[in-house]
Amino acid sequence: MKFTVSEIAQMLDGTIVGDDKITINSAAKIEEGRPGCISFLANSKYEPFIYSTQSSAVIVSRDFAPKKEISATLIYVDNAYTAFTILLEEYQKRMSNNKSGIEQPSFIGENSQIGEDCYRGAFSYIGKNCLIGDDVKVYPHVYIGDNVTIGDYSIIHPGARIYDNTVIGKNCSIFANTVIGSDGFGFAPQSDGTYKTIPQLGNVIIEDDVSIGSNSSIDCATMGSTIIRQGVKIDNLVQIAHNVEIGKNTVIAAQSGISGSTTIGEQCIIAGQVGITGHITVANNTKIGAQSGLGKSIKKEGLSLSGSPARDLNEHLRSMALTRRLPEMEDRLKDLESKQETSDFQ
Amino acid sequence: MKFTVSEIAQMLDGTIVGDDKITINSAAKIEEGRPGCISFLANSKYEPFIYSTQSSAVIVSRDFAPKKEISATLIYVDNAYTAFTILLEEYQKRMSNNKSGIEQPSFIGENSQIGEDCYRGAFSYIGKNCLIGDDVKVYPHVYIGDNVTIGDYSIIHPGARIYDNTVIGKNCSIFANTVIGSDGFGFAPQSDGTYKTIPQLGNVIIEDDVSIGSNSSIDCATMGSTIIRQGVKIDNLVQIAHNVEIGKNTVIAAQSGISGSTTIGEQCIIAGQVGITGHITVANNTKIGAQSGLGKSIKKEGLSLSGSPARDLNEHLRSMALTRRLPEMEDRLKDLESKQETSDFQ
Amino acid sequence: MKFTVSEIAQMLDGTIVGDDKITINSAAKIEEGRPGCISFLANSKYEPFIYSTQSSAVIVSRDFAPKKEISATLIYVDNAYTAFTILLEEYQKRMSNNKSGIEQPSFIGENSQIGEDCYRGAFSYIGKNCLIGDDVKVYPHVYIGDNVTIGDYSIIHPGARIYDNTVIGKNCSIFANTVIGSDGFGFAPQSDGTYKTIPQLGNVIIEDDVSIGSNSSIDCATMGSTIIRQGVKIDNLVQIAHNVEIGKNTVIAAQSGISGSTTIGEQCIIAGQVGITGHITVANNTKIGAQSGLGKSIKKEGLSLSGSPARDLNEHLRSMALTRRLPEMEDRLKDLESKQETSDFQ
Repeated sequence: MKFTVSEIAQMLDGTIVGDDKITINSAAKIEEGRPGCISFLANSKYEPFIYSTQSSAVIVSRDFAPKKEISATLIYVDNAYTAFTILLEEYQKRMSNNKSGIEQPSFIGENSQIGEDCYRGAFSYIGKNCLIGDDVKVYPHVYIGDNVTIGDYSIIHPGARIYDNTVIGKNCSIFANTVIGSDGFGFAPQSDGTYKTIPQLGNVIIEDDVSIGSNSSIDCATMGSTIIRQGVKIDNLVQIAHNVEIGKNTVIAAQSGISGSTTIGEQCIIAGQVGITGHITVANNTKIGAQSGLGKSIKKEGLSLSGSPARDLNEHLRSMALTRRLPEMEDRLKDLESKQETSDFQ
Repeated sequence: MKFTVSEIAQMLDGTIVGDDKITINSAAKIEEGRPGCISFLANSKYEPFIYSTQSSAVIVSRDFAPKKEISATLIYVDNAYTAFTILLEEYQKRMSNNKSGIEQPSFIGENSQIGEDCYRGAFSYIGKNCLIGDDVKVYPHVYIGDNVTIGDYSIIHPGARIYDNTVIGKNCSIFANTVIGSDGFGFAPQSDGTYKTIPQLGNVIIEDDVSIGSNSSIDCATMGSTIIRQGVKIDNLVQIAHNVEIGKNTVIAAQSGISGSTTIGEQCIIAGQVGITGHITVANNTKIGAQSGLGKSIKKEGLSLSGSPARDLNEHLRSMALTRRLPEMEDRLKDLESKQETSDFQ
Repeated sequence: MKFTVSEIAQMLDGTIVGDDKITINSAAKIEEGRPGCISFLANSKYEPFIYSTQSSAVIVSRDFAPKKEISATLIYVDNAYTAFTILLEEYQKRMSNNKSGIEQPSFIGENSQIGEDCYRGAFSYIGKNCLIGDDVKVYPHVYIGDNVTIGDYSIIHPGARIYDNTVIGKNCSIFANTVIGSDGFGFAPQSDGTYKTIPQLGNVIIEDDVSIGSNSSIDCATMGSTIIRQGVKIDNLVQIAHNVEIGKNTVIAAQSGISGSTTIGEQCIIAGQVGITGHITVANNTKIGAQSGLGKSIKKEGLSLSGSPARDLNEHLRSMALTRRLPEMEDRLKDLESKQETSDFQ
C-alpha cells in the first residue's frame, strides 16, 4: 500500500510545502520516523523532533511556523491530529484483508438468518433463531447462543461468547474472549449455610457503536436487561454485573468493575481498576480516578471523584497530601504537648 | 410457556386473592410490570408499586395487608422472595432448551467415558481417560484435557478450559472462558537475573455445588491440589493461585484475587476487587469489604474487615473519617501553635 | 514413571544416606509425604517434619545435620530446593504426554509454514503467511491470525488468541484464553460527545523465554510495537495496554494493569493488583507492592514502592501506621485544646 504525498494532501485537504512526489508506505511516530514514513506534529512538546525526523513527510497544523530547516515535506492541515487519524483509518481500510465468506467447519443452528457480505470464521458457532445483519464479521471460535440479534457492520472477535437472547446493535466491536450474557452472580443464603442459585433469566442489550475490549465479562440481568447504551467504550478485563445500565458515550478503562443494578450516566469517564458498588446511580459527566471505590450515588453532574471511598478530587488530593505529612503532624503534636507539660510545671 | 395463576399458586402452596384464571407468560420487577407478567413484593420499600403495577399477579407474604385497592391478583405465600425464586427456577427448567446429544464436529480422546443424557456441543474437545458423569453439559468450544473427572449434572459453559487431571464434582457450573488448572505462577530467581520455571505438577479439585463465573483463573497446585470446597460461589474475573484452598460455602465477588498457598475458611464473604496475600489462613465466617487488601492471617472467626491493609471494619471506618478530616485537624494544630507562640511571647 | 533413589541421586549429583534401592513414584511436600514419595527440606522452619515424614526419601542440603533419627532415605545435595526443581522438571519431561502431530479438524491458511515436530490440536486455527518454528505446540481452540511468527519450543495453550502480525520468540508459554494483540483502547473525543476510534495499526513483539498466564490481555500498539522483553513473567488476568514496553526479566503478578505507552525497566517486581498510569518510565529493579497505584515516573533504580499513590515503602508504612493511630492523635489534639481553653481563662 503506497500513497504519494500529493494524494495524501488531497485526501486531507492539506497544503504541501516540499516535494509532493515522495512515496509514503508507512506511518511512524515523529521521533521514530524512517524514510518512506509519514508522521504528525500536534503537541508542541514534540516540536524538536521535527527538525531531525527521518520521516519523509510530516502533517502539521496551519499555524505551525518552523524555527529551523526541516528536511521532511510538510502537509499543512486544520488539525494535524485529526488529519492523521483520518489517514490511518483510510490506510487500515485499504490494508485490512476484509475477510468475508464462510470458512469450514462452522456451525449454524436452525432458523438463523445471516445478512449479506458476512464473514464466518472456521469453528464459529451460531445457535438457533439468530438474526445477523449485513457485513457482520464472526471470527473463528466465536460462540453465539440462541435468539441472538447482531446489527450491521458489527465485528465479533475470536473466542467471544455471546449467550442466548443477547441483542447487539450496529457498528459494535466485541473483542477476543469477552463474555456477554453469562449468569449474574445471584445466590440466596439458606439457613443451613448453603446458597441457592437465583435463576438469571434476563439478557444483555448493547446499542450501536459500542466497543468492548478483550476478556471482559458482562452478565445478563436477573430479570429484564443489562444495558450498554450507544457509543459506550469499555476496555479489557472489565466486569459489568447483572442489571447494570451504562449511559451513552461513557468510557470505562481496564479492570474496572460495576456491581449489580447500578446505573451509570452518560458521558462519564471511569479510569482503570475502579470499583463501583451495587444499586446506586451515578450522574452524567462524572469522572472517576483510577483505583477509586465508589460506594454511594452521585446526584450532581460533572463531578471529578477520586479515592476509596471516592470523594471530590481536590479534597481527596488534600487529604492524601496530609496523610503523607502525618509523621510531621505528629512531631508538631508532640512538640505542643511537651511545651504544654513545661507550662503546666511553671 | 404459560401458567395460570391457579397453577402457580398450587406450585407455591399459596392462597389466591383475585382472578385465579389469569394467564401468566413472563416475570417482571414490580415497578416494570406489564399485563401477563407476575411480580413479587418482599421489601416494603417497594410497596407503593403494588398499587400501580401493571403486572397481572403479584406474590406477597401472608402478613401483607394492602392499604389501597390493588388491581393485580395476589398470591399469598410464606416467603414471597423464596416463592418467586422457586417459580423462576421452574420457569427456567421448562424454558431451557435442555440441550442434549452430540453436535458435530466434536473431539473425544481414547478411553474417555461419557455418562447418559449428556450434551457435547460442536467444537468441544475432551482428551484421553476422562470420566464424565450423567446429564453433564459440555458446551461448544470447551476444552477438557486428559484424565479429567466431571460429576453428574455439571455444566461446562462455552470456551471454559479444564486442564489435565482436574476433578470437578456434581452440580457445578463453570462459566464461559474460565480456566481451571493452568500453571501456577512459580519461578525461581537465578543468579544471572533470569527466572527458572518451577514445574507445576499438581491439579485442581472442585467439590460439589460449586459455581465459578466467567473469565476466572484457578491455577493448579505446584504439588498436591488447589481445592475449592463444596458450595463455594466464585464470580467473574477472579484469580485463585496455586495451592489455595477455599472453604465450604465461601463466596468471592468479581475481580478478587487470592495468592498462592493461602487457606480461606468456610462461610466467608469476600467482596469485589479484594486482594489476599499468599501463605496465610483466614478463619471461618470472615467478611472482607470491597477493595480490601489482606496481608496477614485471621485467627478469630466472624470478623468484618476492610481497608488496605485490611483491619477491623469499625476501626477502618473511623480512620477513614478522620483522614477526610485531616485538613480540619491541621487547622486546629496550626491554631494551637499560634496560641502557643503568643503565650511564649507573654 | 518410577525412579530408584540411586537413579535420583545420580541425576542430582547427590550422596545417599539410607536404603538406595527404594522406588520413588511421586513427589510430595514433606508434611504431606506418603510411602513412595520424595520430598525436600530447604527451609529450616520445616525441619520438624523430616523426623515424622512418611516420604520414602528426602533431598537435603549438604550441611543438614539431623537432630533425631529419620526413617526416610536422605539424598544430600548442594542446594536442596534447586535439586528438587531439577527432579520435578525431569519428571514432568518424562511424564508429559509430549503431544505431537495434527488432530482434525484443524485449520491452516495459505502460505503458512509449520516447523518440525509440532503439535496442532483439534479446532486450532492458523491464518495466512504465518511462520511457526520447530517443536511448537498449538493446543485446541487456539486462534492465530495472519502474518504471525512463533519461535521454536513455544507453547500456545488452549483458547489463546494471537492477533495478526504478532511476533513471539522461542521457549515462550502463552496460557489459556490469553489475548495477544487485540486493539489498544484509543478513542478521540468529538465535539458532539461521541468518540472516534483511533485505528490501532501496530503489533505485539514478545521476545524469548516469556511466560504469560491465563486470561491476560496484551494490546497491540497504535503504531509501532507493544514489547515484552526476554525472560519476562506475567501472571493471570494482567492488562498490558498499547505501546507499553516491559524490560528484561521483569515479573508482574496477577490482576495488575499497565496503561498505554509506559515503559517498565528490567528486573522489576510488580506484585498483584497494581495499577501503573500511562506515559511514564519506571527504572530498573523497581519493586512495587500489591495494590499500589503508580502515577509518575521512577528515575532512580532499585526503589521499593507501595501505596496508592505509590511512594517509598518505609514512608508509606509509617503513614499507614499513623493513619491507624489517627483516633488517638485526635484525642491528643482535643486534650491540648481543652488545656489551652483552660489557660485562656486563667
